[in-house]
Amino acid sequence: MHPNLAAARGTLAADTVFRNAEIYHPFDCSWERADLAVREGLVVGLGAGYQGRSEQDLAGARVVPGLVDAHVHIESSLLCPAEYARLVLSRGTTTVIADPHEIANVLGVQGIEYMLHEGRATPLDILVLLPSCVPATPSDAGGAVLTAEDLLPFAGRKGVIGLGEMMDVAGVLAGDGEVTRKLRLSDIRDGHAPLLSGKDLNAYLLSGLQSDHETTTPAEAREKLRRGMYLFLREGSTERNLRDLAPAVTPCTASRCSFATDDRHADMLVAEGHIDDCIRKAVASGMELEVALRIATLSPCDRFRLTDRGALAPGRLADFCVLGSGPEFRVERTFKRGEAVGEQPYRKPRGIRRAFACTLPDPDGIRIRGPGEARVIGLVPGQITTRDLRFPVEEGQIPDTSRDILKAVVCDRYRDRGCGTGLVHGFGLREGAIAGSVSHDAHNIVAVGTADRDILTAIRRVIEREGGLVAVGADQVTELPLPVAGLMSAAPYDRVAARLGELERHVEQMGGIPHAFMQLSFLALTVIPALRLTPRGLFDVAAGRDVPVFPGSGGDPGT
Amino acid sequence: MHPNLAAARGTLAADTVFRNAEIYHPFDCSWERADLAVREGLVVGLGAGYQGRSEQDLAGARVVPGLVDAHVHIESSLLCPAEYARLVLSRGTTTVIADPHEIANVLGVQGIEYMLHEGRATPLDILVLLPSCVPATPSDAGGAVLTAEDLLPFAGRKGVIGLGEMMDVAGVLAGDGEVTRKLRLSDIRDGHAPLLSGKDLNAYLLSGLQSDHETTTPAEAREKLRRGMYLFLREGSTERNLRDLAPAVTPCTASRCSFATDDRHADMLVAEGHIDDCIRKAVASGMELEVALRIATLSPCDRFRLTDRGALAPGRLADFCVLGSGPEFRVERTFKRGEAVGEQPYRKPRGIRRAFACTLPDPDGIRIRGPGEARVIGLVPGQITTRDLRFPVEEGQIPDTSRDILKAVVCDRYRDRGCGTGLVHGFGLREGAIAGSVSHDAHNIVAVGTADRDILTAIRRVIEREGGLVAVGADQVTELPLPVAGLMSAAPYDRVAARLGELERHVEQMGGIPHAFMQLSFLALTVIPALRLTPRGLFDVAAGRDVPVFPGSGGDPGT
Repeated sequence: MHPNLAAARGTLAADTVFRNAEIYHPFDCSWERADLAVREGLVVGLGAGYQGRSEQDLAGARVVPGLVDAHVHIESSLLCPAEYARLVLSRGTTTVIADPHEIANVLGVQGIEYMLHEGRATPLDILVLLPSCVPATPSDAGGAVLTAEDLLPFAGRKGVIGLGEMMDVAGVLAGDGEVTRKLRLSDIRDGHAPLLSGKDLNAYLLSGLQSDHETTTPAEAREKLRRGMYLFLREGSTERNLRDLAPAVTPCTASRCSFATDDRHADMLVAEGHIDDCIRKAVASGMELEVALRIATLSPCDRFRLTDRGALAPGRLADFCVLGSGPEFRVERTFKRGEAVGEQPYRKPRGIRRAFACTLPDPDGIRIRGPGEARVIGLVPGQITTRDLRFPVEEGQIPDTSRDILKAVVCDRYRDRGCGTGLVHGFGLREGAIAGSVSHDAHNIVAVGTADRDILTAIRRVIEREGGLVAVGADQVTELPLPVAGLMSAAPYDRVAARLGELERHVEQMGGIPHAFMQLSFLALTVIPALRLTPRGLFDVAAGRDVPVFPGSGGDPGT
Repeated sequence: MHPNLAAARGTLAADTVFRNAEIYHPFDCSWERADLAVREGLVVGLGAGYQGRSEQDLAGARVVPGLVDAHVHIESSLLCPAEYARLVLSRGTTTVIADPHEIANVLGVQGIEYMLHEGRATPLDILVLLPSCVPATPSDAGGAVLTAEDLLPFAGRKGVIGLGEMMDVAGVLAGDGEVTRKLRLSDIRDGHAPLLSGKDLNAYLLSGLQSDHETTTPAEAREKLRRGMYLFLREGSTERNLRDLAPAVTPCTASRCSFATDDRHADMLVAEGHIDDCIRKAVASGMELEVALRIATLSPCDRFRLTDRGALAPGRLADFCVLGSGPEFRVERTFKRGEAVGEQPYRKPRGIRRAFACTLPDPDGIRIRGPGEARVIGLVPGQITTRDLRFPVEEGQIPDTSRDILKAVVCDRYRDRGCGTGLVHGFGLREGAIAGSVSHDAHNIVAVGTADRDILTAIRRVIEREGGLVAVGADQVTELPLPVAGLMSAAPYDRVAARLGELERHVEQMGGIPHAFMQLSFLALTVIPALRLTPRGLFDVAAGRDVPVFPGSGGDPGT
């Protein structure tokens, strides 16, 4: 007889028995006072009468299954996997579904291998979805192109559980051959369908996509749920969709919903938390705690067919959090496979680099001519979507801080093919500039500023360091180096969070909005409406084509 | 582009558009007025604006996804697969999860092949779980022994989706090698755990069993749900657990619950219905209709990972029912893969037989000696469980109709090794006898009666016909021949139901209880507590051993 079976029957001592736990059961959203017997990392028994070689009295503390992030890009934390893991484990997360889409855009299969390798060195279970869109759309040019053939060797590998967010909605709807081959790599296929509705949504689902984390409104949530799509409520640094979507989660829909953070900087993880933060915010938005816990645990596991976790039940992983006694949801201790975690020391990660093959543009290369009615990218506070705005501008008055019309520049990091230049509204900077090498999804260099000189200074620093976030202005320079693929810091998470705080304060001092670097990183994201900037210039997402700053100018049909 | 994709986008006409349907969505338990576009048997679109080569106006009729039976033995209907299918399709069922456990006990792999073959000839999707316990326990001797090695060639075959109910609880708990090998055949493993609780339940779940249809009380349901077990609410001819378990189904637990009929005779299917009947009874028991519909559609599909059905959503099978307009749930028309069904004619099934290798016992062979305090099997109305009763009896006064203590006989059908004889309370017969060749799980011949002569007459008829149900007494003989493996009729379902009605009336005339033949068929079922009868004699299920009729007699430790 297997010893775990004997332990379940109580005829052999368990490794550990946690006595007097107030255990949350996601199956019926209830609590039960019971002892929890663990052996070899698995729950072997619940109830009374178990003996353990070691025992812990939890004295009635609430215990919930380990929290799960249904969709995250670890690179977006700016932390290496081990540091990311150390941080989110302390917040109660024990499993994340990660899409190494960012590093894959920089380094291709080598980037995926790096994340798989680094991910194995932590108790956090980092389960990987294969990046389906490298580059994000056929018109993007990043550091790599991944075909279905490139991805095939990863399918079925340990720790790889499916295909990541299929952003190429146009390719799906066109029945594109390469997209179709990618969809055949796995029967777990994450979607990415911002604002998709009606027949296009039907066609997207018919093609085999199953989930979405880009939903922003309750009506959109309702339509997607009813069409069979799993709904991930996203709460990232700037993509704050949780409060709007919370009403879509009911006891009836809870099995179809999960939390996701997608892109959350280290400073937000430290200050606000991870999935624990999502739970607190959901409860603040009126969701029952027991329903929020269901979508933080069992529901994402069911969606990804992870039948070995998601609840504290016999045969499942003994991943759990012990909560504080206060009324608020607060994780005090996290256990992974029955062992307390959170005390591991920082270890320097292995490095991986990709040389920056771009030279600094000269001022002429980032000039915007005028005058005229210009297209301006409009940021939307708390959202990843942008608006396609129009402002009359004159060449001599760009940037115009009085109307918050700043200059944005994106430089091809990989080919030295020059820069795209555009205008953006919403950053709020009254002086200086910011730049960074995190720039979804190609991760070129992106900058926004009030003066060409500051913009170029900031870009130069990013190139010199081969990656980083830089704020220039008010007589100072603040930097967070990102030497790992130009995307991640090699430093401990608390230092990264502290430096992000300094960058945040520097930007604030210059009049900028909160989370300006996360907003900056999405300026070039050609898979989310409406207007974006690439090294070629402005890009109209709905139309799927490049457009000039001045709609009336040559070759542009206008709007 | 695949034509279905074009149809989903609305650029190509669908095969059929069902206009103005009031569609039930199990994902959020809601209704939506929409058009439903179907192509090649799949839902390609919902919403407005679809064109079809053919169109039907449903004028606001309610439409629900095809109903699903999570656990059934088709043989128990006494109908061959095609007739069973014709009947339940007309009641709205489009998918059943069937365990050919009965015919496998008679004919081994040949029986499984027969059911797979016959099942393919009907529009009903009969998805098969492999019979895990042939014979039911090591002490049973039926017509076949199926090892893991025997079952292996079936694993992964089209239409085979997992391992059927693991009844050998003792074998599971002992970590038996052969049981363990069977559990490794699939990662979908149905359980069978009547009254299992506490540590034994934990151990059973740890071993990989996932669901249970043998639950009878709300407390049992609650414990099993909380331990991660899928709960099937069973409502068979005599196993009526739905009303007791209905309160366990809430919007929160609905994703973990399903309906099952397990063993339901054709007459009940005709008179009361199938899963549609379960829905009506659930609603009558206080369950919200929308919750009942969820557990009749999406939930069983999720449990069995049938992602291609369970809801009317893009890419899923266009299996659905159109309801009548009255307040009660009533299926008017069933559509399978977009086509109306229910109009197929009866076709004679292929035959399959197993010779009856037993001779009729002589009166001496079925004598019960006394006097003394005798063990008596006590039927429990509406339940499959029995009680272990004690009555003082005298040899000359057996059977004793005044106290409803009748004689029960089980004859080995396969080996001519004689009969086991016992006493049973609860059949109510005041004259005559009944016998049948349906006798779970070995399907020996079983009989109950008020007089040895009638018992032997009934048994002789069953042997002569090589299978059937027989009522003898009140100057008449009523029979339903079961030539197909001694388990199933070859006749059309309405004729089988009519004959069952005649048998029912005959039994009633003799003072017997309703559904006496279904109760009779469970008398020998050694995997459900408490007391059973085998060709060897009485069997104490909890103790797992044969016991004599008189506890005080030789070799018996008594109770």
